[in-house]
Order: sequence, then C-alpha cells, then structure tokens
Amino acid sequence: MQADVRIAGAGMTPFSGDADADVRTLLERAATRALDDAGVDGSAVDAVHVGNMAAEAFEEVSGLHNALAASVGAHGAQADRVENTSASGASAFQRGVQAVASGAADTALVVGGEKMSSASTETATGVIGSIVHAEEYAHGVTLPSFGGLAADAYLRRHDAPREALAEVAVKNHANGARNDYAQFQKRISVADALDSPLVADPLRLYDCCPTTDGAAALVLTNGGGAVSVRACESAVGTHAVAERADPLDIASVREAGERAFEAAERGRDDVDVACIHDAFTVLELLELEELGFYDAGEAWEATMDGETALDGALPVNPGGGLKARGHPLGGTGVSQLVELVWQLRGDADGRQVDCETGLAVNVAGFGNNAVCSLLEVAE
Amino acid sequence: MQADVRIAGAGMTPFSGDADADVRTLLERAATRALDDAGVDGSAVDAVHVGNMAAEAFEEVSGLHNALAASVGAHGAQADRVENTSASGASAFQRGVQAVASGAADTALVVGGEKMSSASTETATGVIGSIVHAEEYAHGVTLPSFGGLAADAYLRRHDAPREALAEVAVKNHANGARNDYAQFQKRISVADALDSPLVADPLRLYDCCPTTDGAAALVLTNGGGAVSVRACESAVGTHAVAERADPLDIASVREAGERAFEAAERGRDDVDVACIHDAFTVLELLELEELGFYDAGEAWEATMDGETALDGALPVNPGGGLKARGHPLGGTGVSQLVELVWQLRGDADGRQVDCETGLAVNVAGFGNNAVCSLLEVAE
Repeated sequence: MQADVRIAGAGMTPFSGDADADVRTLLERAATRALDDAGVDGSAVDAVHVGNMAAEAFEEVSGLHNALAASVGAHGAQADRVENTSASGASAFQRGVQAVASGAADTALVVGGEKMSSASTETATGVIGSIVHAEEYAHGVTLPSFGGLAADAYLRRHDAPREALAEVAVKNHANGARNDYAQFQKRISVADALDSPLVADPLRLYDCCPTTDGAAALVLTNGGGAVSVRACESAVGTHAVAERADPLDIASVREAGERAFEAAERGRDDVDVACIHDAFTVLELLELEELGFYDAGEAWEATMDGETALDGALPVNPGGGLKARGHPLGGTGVSQLVELVWQLRGDADGRQVDCETGLAVNVAGFGNNAVCSLLEVAE
Repeated sequence: MQADVRIAGAGMTPFSGDADADVRTLLERAATRALDDAGVDGSAVDAVHVGNMAAEAFEEVSGLHNALAASVGAHGAQADRVENTSASGASAFQRGVQAVASGAADTALVVGGEKMSSASTETATGVIGSIVHAEEYAHGVTLPSFGGLAADAYLRRHDAPREALAEVAVKNHANGARNDYAQFQKRISVADALDSPLVADPLRLYDCCPTTDGAAALVLTNGGGAVSVRACESAVGTHAVAERADPLDIASVREAGERAFEAAERGRDDVDVACIHDAFTVLELLELEELGFYDAGEAWEATMDGETALDGALPVNPGGGLKARGHPLGGTGVSQLVELVWQLRGDADGRQVDCETGLAVNVAGFGNNAVCSLLEVAE
C-alpha cells in the first residue's frame, strides 16, 4: 500500500433466502450500520462504491450507487458501482482502497449486496452461467459442472475420501450456527452432507452455496480506524478452464495471493484467520493450497484433522463462509471483510478466534478473477 | 492529480444502430485499436477497466472485463467493470486513472461500450428508466420527460427562441458528418429539427440522442503518452429532480467541473475544446452554463452566434456529440475522451480544431452523477 488505509466501520444485513426488501434497501441498511459503527455521518463520505453483479437483470434497476449516496446523505460524493461477477464485493473494496490511496477520497463507503430471490430461475441461470468463457458456456458447462469435475479430480489425484468435502460443509455450518447474520444457522453432520441430493457428481447439495439476499458495508478512511488494510490485490486467471495447464489450477487465486502477501510484507504464517470463497466445498481446499497455506493435496487432511476449525491452527470461514452465511454475489466479498473486521476487533461473539492478521479471498466465476485482501489490527 | 497519468493510445469502433457483433466483440475491437495506437501489447496491461451499463439485462452476459482481459492477452491483470448508468464510460476512466495514480497499475486499459440494439424495448425502457429517483420513476417521469420539462423552463426563463435548441442539433449533426465513426453522418437544417416528431414538448426527435451500439478505448500509463490527464473528478447531484432548488440546476456537473478545474489548476479560458453530454439539446446549454463557460441563460445565444461551432471560440462536441456520434451508454464517456485525444494530437481529420486543453463531461441519468475530465497536450 502506498497510503495507510484504515477500516473505521463495518456492518451487514442478515443474509437470507428471501429478504423483505429490494437491493437498494438492503444496501442502505448495511451502509447505515457501517456508518453508525464508524461514528461517521453520511455527509462526511466523499466516495461511495457499490459492489453488485446484476441488479439490472435481477430487479430491473440501475444506478444503485447514486440512490445509495442520496439515501445516506453523501452529498457530492464520487460514486460508482463495481462489478466482478461473484467477486463484485471485493472489487468494490479494491476500488475504494485505491480511491483513498490515490488521494481521491478521504472517507469511502464500500457496500456490496445482491437480491437474488428477485430473479427468475431462467434469468439467474443465464446471467450467472455467462460469467465463464463463452465457448464453455455455449457447450453447457455451468459453474456446478466445473465444481463437480474439479472435486472428482481432486479426490482421485490426492486419494482423498469423499468425507473430506463433507467436512468442509460440516465445519462451515458449525460456524454459521454461531453467526446471527448467517443464512443457515444449523449444524449438519457428515452423514447429512453425504445423503443430500446429488448436484454435480461428486458434489451434493451441502457442497454448494445457496442463493442469497443480503448486503454488507465498510467505511474506509485515510485516518483513524481499528483495522489496517495491508493489501488488496487482484488478478484474472486463464479465462477458459479448458485452456488451463491443470484443471485444478486456479492461477487467479495464486497470483492475487502472492501479490497480497508481497504488498503487505507478510507471510503465510502471519495469517491467523481466513475467509475463503467456498462456493463449492472443493474450492475451499483448492484455494487454501493455491494461497500457500497447504501444499497441493494436503488441505483435505488438514481439514479432517480440524486445523481449519474455529479452534484449529488456521480458522477458515469463521462466519460460516459462502456455504452457511450465504452467497449474495456482490455482497459476499464485503461480508468476508466485515467478518475479518469483527474478528480483528474482538467483536465476533460466540465464534471469536485469537487473531491479529486476517486474509480474505473472493473469486469471480470459476477462478476467472480473484481478489485477495490482508487486514490487520492497526498499530 | 498526484501522479502524471498519460494517455498513450485511443481507439473506437464505428457507432451504429445495429452492430454486427455482441458487446464483448465490440469491446475487444475498440481495445485492440487503442493498444495498436499505443504500440502496447496486451501482455503489458496490468489493469483492465470496462465501462458498461447493463449487459446482464440487455444481452444476458456478465464478466465482460474478464473476457476482455483474456481476449487481449492481459494475463494476470487487475480487472473489473464500472457502472454509472449513462456515465459508466467516464467512471471506468476515473477508476483507471486512480489505479495508475495510486500505484496499483502501470498500464491500464479502459474500455467503454454497450450494445443497446440487443435489448427489447421493454427491457431497455425499464432499466434505463430506473436510473432516476425511484419515486419519480414510479410516477412515470422518464428521462425524456425531464428533458422536455427542463427545455420548456429554459426557453421561458431566458426568453430564448425554440430555434436555439435546434441549432445545437444542427451543429452537432454538422460535426458528425465529418466523423467516420459517427452513427449519423448527415447534416440537418433548423427546419428539419423543428419539423421532426414531437417527443416531450418542446423536445422533438432531433433534440434527442439515439440508441447506439459501439465501444471506445484508451490506454493509460504512468509513463509516456502524448496526452496528459490533468484531472478526472466526479460528483453525485441531488438525486430527485423534484428536490432540487431549481429544476434547471445540475449540481453534479457544476461540482464535478469545479473540482476538475481546481485539480487541474486550469481555468475556463484555458479550455480550447469541449465534449458535452448532449443527451438532449437543452443539456448542452445547461451544462455549458453549469461548467462556467457561460452565465446562466447565455449559452443559447452563444450557440446561435456560432461560438460553439468548429470554427467558434469554444468548439463543442466536434465529434458530433451524443446527438450525432451516438450514445452507447457505457461507451459514451470513453468516446468523448477518444475525440479529445484525437483533437489534442492533431489527428481529427476534417474536424480538427486548434487546441492544447480539452474538457469532457459525461452525465449519469438526469444529472444524478457527473464525471468531468481535463486533458492536455503533454509537455
């Protein structure tokens, strides 16, 4: 980072499958909570950056950021909306960080959200399906298909048991059960996961994130704030999965992670807690390996050994992850960072881990792009 | 500006009412032209920022920036898409400028584009209509309605003849007739404008921009380039038109302009050429006044006196403006800047004006947000 960017406030709406409000209202609710948390009035905000994937298609509304600026009283602010498919939230955060770092803004409000329940299944399927390579989409390969293929390859290559995937879901549901904001606040067993309906062999329902409504928000400043942004880096990967040297390769996550560690001047051992983009259970394992926390083929055993549980050496997805907290596309990346802020400030009641440094990775499509952030307790 | 951000290359597709390709292809074509113009290979690009308003709704595709990064070979780049309704292009430019200024990128590719002809009239009307305040939209006030109300108020308050609006269209069509990239390359007369079908009294067809397909691109660097970015500033305005102190007030344009002049350390007299967001003829007059080029109520007479013509004291919209070059929503803001780059480099064959400093303003909705840029021949 060129400048000392801080996070002064964080807040989110409860995530659910059927919110009682439209996306504009969800964004406003999350923003209001973050501003209240920061003790900042909307009039002090000089940049508003909204992360949202597809409000035009899902709800036939546009210009979310201008409506939000008006509703929080951010008169005259710089404002825009950032889209990076399922990583729109983290990209909006990156945009806000660069606005502050460049001197363009002193106080930036970053809000990510989506209302997926407003979309017809046809629209949601078409729009979300289009985020991978056009040729692959034309051949009918959807995100769950890629997930299933990758899961099958991972288990075979590393001689891992099917239960390893289930353990990811069991852990994240256990964490979500401790989070009032999570869409699913219920524990599940390995047997539940293994018995759930098949989606894309070997992935079953409990291996897949849900569709979600919700929003999350952060207040960034160039001044005070309990949490310091050490890095926010992103990278596109090889767009077509078929063109990747290895089908288990997620270059975007590896590259974004390497850049983030370098920019933050921190190593893997410095990270005390991580929010990983577990849209499918297998992705949590692959991303932990791409980020260098585990060697290839070793994350599954670490997970089964409890290393990534709340009381493990590296707690992963303490808020429940996409699996249990939910995955409101443009909201997810910001919600990961809200969870890290709460953890770093010691505000994560019932699921608090001991931490000074946290990492989040938010992935667009099937590794088409990734954004990696490192946050730390401010000195 | 904190850093010396330069424009090293510019290019665009022809604008038309029915492009032969989808938005992804249009973006790629414009990007390739800008990269060729800059003499930069795609692999040297470390940031890709796409301006687009509604590809999800218009064409059911998402993740344009990731597909674009792949198609131009910008491996591992930071990439996202920026939306600010009809000012999405200029907001993508602002995002790219801040990326370079913050040190996050050395070479940024900024591409704006839209394929409007793919959208059904119903979808286009719904999505575009939603960019104003929700309550005003709910009451059926559309952008042309606002334009008509403002035009009527302007003519009455300033005792201006109806022909003043027509002269804006006549001038911009005359300029567009000199631009091979313009959607409309035909001159019109004042009589043509006055006789065209009524849209929103007193605005007629020739007072309104068309719907357009097209894309435009720029290559930004922190190093060489013939054009220097002196400023790129933006501001939200009062969101609801009904809440504005004066219905002719466009605070977003005034505020963005003031900030741009201050950041650029330039005055109105320094500007030799301007690209103004003439979605409706009356807006060209109002924006010239809000930017301080003319006092309130004086832009109409200056226009009738030829001051804003190619050979006038302040040539406005030399490329034809939104009126004649066309208005592909997310593409417009970048196309304005491409025109300025061509003018500043002396590359505007057939419509070249004498200039060292140029200004562009791109407006979201009916003044809900505005982005103002000042470019200059590099020293």
